[in-house]
Order: sequence, then structure tokens, then C-alpha cells
Amino acid sequence: MKKVEPRTLAGFMELLPDEQILFNQIKEKIENTYKRYGFLPLDTPGIELADVLLAKAGGETEKQIYKFQKGDTDLALRFDLTVPLAKYVAKNYGNLSFPFRRYQIGKVYRGERAQKGRYREFYQCDIDIIGDEELDLINDAEIPSIIYTIFKELGFENFTIKINNRKILNGLFESISQKENAVEILRIIDKIEKIGKEAVKEELEKIGIENNQIKNIIDFIEIEGTSDEKLEKLEKLGIDNETYIKGIEELKTVVKNIRLFGVPDANFKVDLTIARGLDYYTGTVYETFLNDYREIGSVCSGGRYENLAEYYTDKPLPGVGVSIGLTRLFYKLNELNIIKANKKSIADVLIIPIVEDLEEPIKLATKLRNSGINTEIYLNNKKLKAKFKYANKLKIPYVIVMGQDEIDAKEITLKNMETGEEKRLPIDGDWNLGTF
Amino acid sequence: MKKVEPRTLAGFMELLPDEQILFNQIKEKIENTYKRYGFLPLDTPGIELADVLLAKAGGETEKQIYKFQKGDTDLALRFDLTVPLAKYVAKNYGNLSFPFRRYQIGKVYRGERAQKGRYREFYQCDIDIIGDEELDLINDAEIPSIIYTIFKELGFENFTIKINNRKILNGLFESISQKENAVEILRIIDKIEKIGKEAVKEELEKIGIENNQIKNIIDFIEIEGTSDEKLEKLEKLGIDNETYIKGIEELKTVVKNIRLFGVPDANFKVDLTIARGLDYYTGTVYETFLNDYREIGSVCSGGRYENLAEYYTDKPLPGVGVSIGLTRLFYKLNELNIIKANKKSIADVLIIPIVEDLEEPIKLATKLRNSGINTEIYLNNKKLKAKFKYANKLKIPYVIVMGQDEIDAKEITLKNMETGEEKRLPIDGDWNLGTF
Repeated sequence: MKKVEPRTLAGFMELLPDEQILFNQIKEKIENTYKRYGFLPLDTPGIELADVLLAKAGGETEKQIYKFQKGDTDLALRFDLTVPLAKYVAKNYGNLSFPFRRYQIGKVYRGERAQKGRYREFYQCDIDIIGDEELDLINDAEIPSIIYTIFKELGFENFTIKINNRKILNGLFESISQKENAVEILRIIDKIEKIGKEAVKEELEKIGIENNQIKNIIDFIEIEGTSDEKLEKLEKLGIDNETYIKGIEELKTVVKNIRLFGVPDANFKVDLTIARGLDYYTGTVYETFLNDYREIGSVCSGGRYENLAEYYTDKPLPGVGVSIGLTRLFYKLNELNIIKANKKSIADVLIIPIVEDLEEPIKLATKLRNSGINTEIYLNNKKLKAKFKYANKLKIPYVIVMGQDEIDAKEITLKNMETGEEKRLPIDGDWNLGTF
Repeated sequence: MKKVEPRTLAGFMELLPDEQILFNQIKEKIENTYKRYGFLPLDTPGIELADVLLAKAGGETEKQIYKFQKGDTDLALRFDLTVPLAKYVAKNYGNLSFPFRRYQIGKVYRGERAQKGRYREFYQCDIDIIGDEELDLINDAEIPSIIYTIFKELGFENFTIKINNRKILNGLFESISQKENAVEILRIIDKIEKIGKEAVKEELEKIGIENNQIKNIIDFIEIEGTSDEKLEKLEKLGIDNETYIKGIEELKTVVKNIRLFGVPDANFKVDLTIARGLDYYTGTVYETFLNDYREIGSVCSGGRYENLAEYYTDKPLPGVGVSIGLTRLFYKLNELNIIKANKKSIADVLIIPIVEDLEEPIKLATKLRNSGINTEIYLNNKKLKAKFKYANKLKIPYVIVMGQDEIDAKEITLKNMETGEEKRLPIDGDWNLGTF
């Protein structure tokens, strides 16, 4: 038979089992935290009608979208979880309770240029809180506490949730009569960490911003100090612009409430350079950095928007949310070898029978499974050495050997694979794996 | 702004939150059972190279596949989880430990004709045990114990795992010189439940089977009795064919071992009409029926195959596995209203603050969350009635009300939403939700 070479597409993550176990643990921790905060699950299709999915898209994103036809219907693969959420809320508005708090963890598709660490299929882990016409500002403060809990759960201590408010920036631009250039200026400012101050100045000059205005912008984003000091300095700049003043008010309130939600000052910070390139954020914005691994970039970003679903409905649906790009995050953490695993295997114990009659080993496996222990029984006829090698390769922490003499004595031999320690124990005893 | 009507494609399941909660519970129970048996997780891409994915496909399946181009690459969406598994095992052969026991739960795509209860995107929940050149028959007996555990976990008692062996059928056909028609005859027999005996006879006649041979086939598949009686009768037919005799031997061994694995005779049965239309099963085959809901059809099917990955590698990779078509199963169970839910909500408790200063309510929420209780705090400024209505619509079982008098007294008011009972309790007390 002619063989086809078994290949996986470039830009598509496909892990070996031991890495998949780690990946799933991280995914599960994120999901459990979202549930801990009472978010409802959502699972939208991977394929949508092209006109629905692309109601808003444009520019770079549109080029990356996987589009195709089936019959005479134009289809597209989802490229994020926000547009499907907007469609879903607009479609099911009458059946939802607001504030609608939903999480969604799923694969999205973007046909980006293939390069190391860039994925064309990747998991996003999103939460959003959607209000019906209005949504209290206090919600903007709960989001960082969720981010905080997740990264603590993942074993990190040294991370910073950076917070800003788009109204402050927009107000600043209004005050220097650069409102119409705001999006472009924000896009440039957003790169300051990557390209440096001088390059930002140059780019601002290129789009026709005057030198004194550039100075104002740079002075502004260079305000230093603690979160509270920055807020104070912002006020002292004395910029008499309504949007600017509202932005400071909001940011002050959010900072105060973040503390109420138990996030220590060590893990969040007002950062006036955070703008989020996207043009639909209208208030609070977030980015999150692992300080020991800045090269990863932001690991959790998002913000407040005024109109989730304006392309589908006239209903104003303000919301706030964040997204974790899990596939890229996993790739980076794995590459840096800094994933803290709870368990390295699925099975807690491997039963190795060295008898013909499997009645007793199978009975024990059933008993262990019924008591909640993930148990595998080695069922192929191999040498004992091969069976132990299997347990080692799968990193299974305990092995139970059952030979005829064990069975006759109503005992088992339990081996701790990490320490090498072995014990004979009564088969019906009260032994448990954890204490051995 | 011009609005796009928010639509979801026909044949794509998209649930409201309360149904999604049920769906996820079922998915989680299946996954946890697979893990309980030590299966390793796998997550392959939704998109594959068309030539890889279609190495084997043909006929009806091929027509249903979503194919498209990106750049000049021919791509296709996966239509099952078996072909990606075959590709994966062939590709990663040197890095896997055998027997390779993997589970995969994921969406697959088939552009079937749209009709009620038929899905174009649906979840499959698969397990397979793959051997390197050989795989002991005992593995065929473990599979039914996994099916048994899952449907018990899902709250069912009255279900039957039907078991047969393809060698028996193939041997029978050899013995009446109909080997070359075996696939076609199996396809027809497979429909006996659906179309009845007479229609099966007619179809067999149509493909040129002689009357005395048809009689043999029908007599054979009509063998009645318990599993053991059937096995005995099969032997007594005295068919002197090697494949047939091997099939009976295998089936006898599997039946004996299924009992060892703790599956009661009430939940499994030898059924000689089970053939599985697919032509790649070569030994044991399974189908599972909920006896009170026969109209659903088989809810878990699969079997033993000799060559998982023959289109990709010369290595013989025998395996045995089953698949649950979760999306259709959920649709049917939900339609029949027979899902037994553990929990109807994500949040265990909703905290309703009726004070301006949210310090105490937020502190309590954090405390509850840290102790593992899924907690939502109602953060929007609404009337008390609206807040309770929200708790009701989300089916949240407990509400904690915190007004100024509660806070001053260092108490909370805890309401059991099912019974309506209310209690004032000390905020720092040892009360817990479960016992209230």
C-alpha cells in the first residue's frame, strides 16, 4: 500500500502525552478559577457564517481569516471568542440574565505567517461581564482579582497586572487637539516597551504631531511612582478636559476596589503606557506580565468596552473582560521549563500482574478506580522489566506488583517509583498511596 | 450603523447557559472516567493537510468533509478522531509507550444534510488502546467496563452493551462461500433492527445471495438465549471454519473477562446482529443501547481493528476502542428531559450587597472563593427584587444578603433558594452551605 507521510500543519500545536498533561492542567486551573467566580460556560461553533463573523473585521485580521464555501454558503473559522460572544448575546438577548458573566475556552484560527512560537490554531481563555445598557465600574475591579488568582494558582508570585484607563489618554489627546489622531497615537505609544522612547517620538513626528505636543505626550506617559503617586500627578497636571478628569476618577475608583478584592499592590500597578492597540476599548485596560519572563509579553489582556454587539443590535451592551492566549503561553512556559505541575501522569498507580489468572489484579483495579484512584492495569504479556519501563516512561508514581505468592498471601507489593521503596501490604488493608 | 442579523449555522449546537452547564457535566464525567482508567489525553488540530486526512477516506464520508485552501495548501477539517490518532501514532511512534492508551474529546465536522438532531459540528469522546504489533485480547474486555462505568455515572441503570465478534460473521460467510460479499452482507444485517427481517431478506436476495444461504444467515443471527447459551449454540452449529472457530474462542474469552472487570450480566449481552457497518473492524465489536430510549440508537460503539495506521506506516498497530457521539447524545437526552444533573448552576452562592461600601461583601466573597465555593457577588445597582430574580434565573442555590444591619451585627442572612428558608448567621462562624 502506498503510504502518505503523517504530517501536522506548521503553526498547529500537537503535543506528546506528557506535555499534553501539563497543558490540560493549566487549562483546568484557568477554567476552575473562572467557575470559582461564578462565570457561566459558553461553547460557540468553530465555524460561523462569513457575513456574521466578518461584520466588524477589517485590515490585518481579515486577511488572516480562514474562509471557505460549503455548497453555496460562505463560511469562516472563528478568529477570536469576542465576535462569537457578541453574536450570541445579540441573538439570545431575551434569554440571558444580566450582568451576563460568561467564560469560554476554545480554539480560534488565524492564518498568520508561520514562525516559531506563533500559532495558527490556538486556545483563548476568555471571560467577559456584559451589562444590559449599563455595567457598574466595580466590575472593572473584579477582573484583576481573577487574573491574580489564576497566576497564583499557576505557581507564579512575581507578576504585575498593569492597569490604565483609555479616557485619560483620550482626554489628553483632546486637550492637545489631537483627538482625530488618538487611535494612531495610541498604537504608537503602545510600542514604547518594544521600540523605545526615541523611536516612538520619531513615529509621532512622522504622523504630523508637533514637537511641543510630543513632549506633552511623552511627559505624560513617563509619569513615575506608585499607583497612588501616579494618580496624584495626573491630577496635578491640571488638564482641564472632561474625558481626562472622568478617566482619572474611574482609575482611582478601580484601584481602590482592586485592593478591596484582595489583590496586593505588589501584583498590580497603574501604567500609563498601557493603551491596548485595539480601538474598541473605552475605559479600563489591562495587561499582565510575568516579571521574570518579560520576553513572553502580556499573558492576559483586555479591558472595558461600551458596545459589545453594535454590529448586530441597537442595544447598548457595555462589558469588561480579559483573554489569556493559552497556546502561546504554554509554549513559552514549556520552552522556559517553568511549569509547576501537580501531577506528571494521568494514572496514579499501575498494577502489574505476573500471573496468568487476572481475576485478583482486575478486582484490585476496580476497587481502586471505585475509590477515585486513577488506575491502569498492565494487560499485555511482556517481561517484568518492560512493564516497569512503561511505568517509568509514563511517570506513574506507584506500581503494584501481584504475583502468585502475593495473591496466595492476600498481599500486594507496592513500589514508590520515585524513592524506589517497596512494601508488602495486605490486599484488603487500609493502605493508601498518598501516605506511602 | 447597518446591522447584520446574528445567526448561528444550522447543524451547529449552541446552547443557552443552563443547558451548557448540563452538557459540560456530562463531558466532564466521561473525561474523568477515561482518566480513572489511566488513558492519556490527546488534542490534535481541527485542521489537517487534506492529503493526510483523506489518505483513507472515500465514499459518503469524503463528500461530507469540509475542504478548503489557504494560500496554495489543501486543508480539511477533521471528520473523526480516529484518522488524526492514526496520523499521530505513526508520526510519533518512537516517542510513545505501548500499549498507548489515549482519550480524546473534541469537535469534528461533517457537512451532512441538515435535519433535526443531526449535527455538522459535534463532539466525539474517544478512547483507544493501541498495541505495538500485538495487543492482548484482555483489552477487549476492559473497554465494556469503561462504558459501563460511564453510563452508571451518568445515572443510567437500564442499558446494554452489545458485543459480537466479526470473525464469527466472517467465518460464517466463508463457510457459505460468500466471503467476497461479506462487507455488503454485514451492512445489510446491521439494519435488521431498523428495517426488520423481511426487508433484510429482500436486500440479501437483491445482491444475489441464494435462498438456502439466506436461511443460514438468518438462522444464525436469530440465535437466542443468554450470552452463554448463544456461545454454546454457535459451537453446536458445527461450522467447520477456522475464522468462525477463532471468533467464538475470542468472544468466549472476552465475555469471561468482562465479568472479571465487574460488568454485571444485566448490562452486557452477546448480540450476533451487531456487525458495525465499517469494514475495518476485525474482531470484537460493541454497541450500547439505553433500553428505555431505544430510539436514540447506539450511544457508544466501536471495536477491535488490526491496523490503525496502515495508510501512514508499515508498522502493524492493532487497537481496540469506542466512541461516544456526545453532541447527539446530549441533544436526545435533553429532548427527553432525562439528564440527571449534579448541579444546575456554576455559582454555589450569590452574595447580594445592600450597602454602598462593598468592603465586607467583597471580603466574604474572597473568603468563600478561597475555601473552594463558587461565589458570585452581585455588583450592579439594582432593586433587591431584581437581584433575587437573577439568582432564581441562574438557579443559584444559596443567596447571602448583606445589609448595614447585618454588617453592624457581624452577621449575614443566608437564604436557601429551594426551600425559601432564611437564617441569620455570624459572618465568621463555621456555617457551611451544604448543611443548611
